Amino acid sequence: MADAVLFEFLHTEMVAELWARDPDPGSGGKKKSLSVLEGLGFRVGQALGERLPRETLAFREELDALKFLCKDLWAAMFQKHMDGLRTNHQGTYVLQDNSFPLFITMGSGSQYLEEAPKFLAFTCGLLCGALHTLGFQSLVTASVAALPACKFQVVIQKY
Amino acid sequence: MADAVLFEFLHTEMVAELWARDPDPGSGGKKKSLSVLEGLGFRVGQALGERLPRETLAFREELDALKFLCKDLWAAMFQKHMDGLRTNHQGTYVLQDNSFPLFITMGSGSQYLEEAPKFLAFTCGLLCGALHTLGFQSLVTASVAALPACKFQVVIQKY
Repeated sequence: MADAVLFEFLHTEMVAELWARDPDPGSGGKKKSLSVLEGLGFRVGQALGERLPRETLAFREELDALKFLCKDLWAAMFQKHMDGLRTNHQGTYVLQDNSFPLFITMGSGSQYLEEAPKFLAFTCGLLCGALHTLGFQSLVTASVAALPACKFQVVIQKY
Repeated sequence: MADAVLFEFLHTEMVAELWARDPDPGSGGKKKSLSVLEGLGFRVGQALGERLPRETLAFREELDALKFLCKDLWAAMFQKHMDGLRTNHQGTYVLQDNSFPLFITMGSGSQYLEEAPKFLAFTCGLLCGALHTLGFQSLVTASVAALPACKFQVVIQKY
């Protein structure tokens, strides 16, 4: 029994609980649940970020911070690395996971695609929160073309 | 960065989120949030139980099941063992943890004692859910005399 599954099970049940509370997709409840999950993820990401070794917190380059998410953060969460990282070198990054672990409880047929966003919101928030602690403001969204693969798009905000 | 903290952070944020939704202690909201946390814990405990090796699922003796919770389950959750296990040999067990990890985000003064139940409800449910998968019906409650120590009382239900 690996303790990694504890996080995955808790995540699954939390998603189910929030959905059960706002069951009506027409009421804006769905959107609210997504933003609640994203907020939870953000705070967990911040907290994780604050536990990083001091030297890691001194990333000067965006790309180093993104590589850190793809390797160290992903390893801490899912015991593996992200499968791909691409950038347009203008502050937009696409992180690809060919088998996203938090989809484990979902079926893999295309009929489940519409269920995917609720399993992605927490992790979008978490990536954003970790980047925040690393000193970068960002917008993070996710998309799925074929389960269980997914892509996270990170856009670094410049002021 | 240990991945164990991921579960702890997520648990903390989940408790905070549920509390923020039902802030009025006089409305029954507090009680409802506790039972939601307990229900989440129960389902996570069941799911963890279902991942156990087959031979573990064949506990005949209650005491073996309880020892399993104190050692293997606690190690999977918190990377340590429970500090004590006592029984009256009539179906009641007291499990003692001298430093319960999910109290980490709380202060340790006695003024925080009234906050303790919300950090215990999930784990009470989890123990009950794991026992359910192991074939035992139980009632699990927790008590705190001095933070960060706590006791879980398990009463096995016989029919």
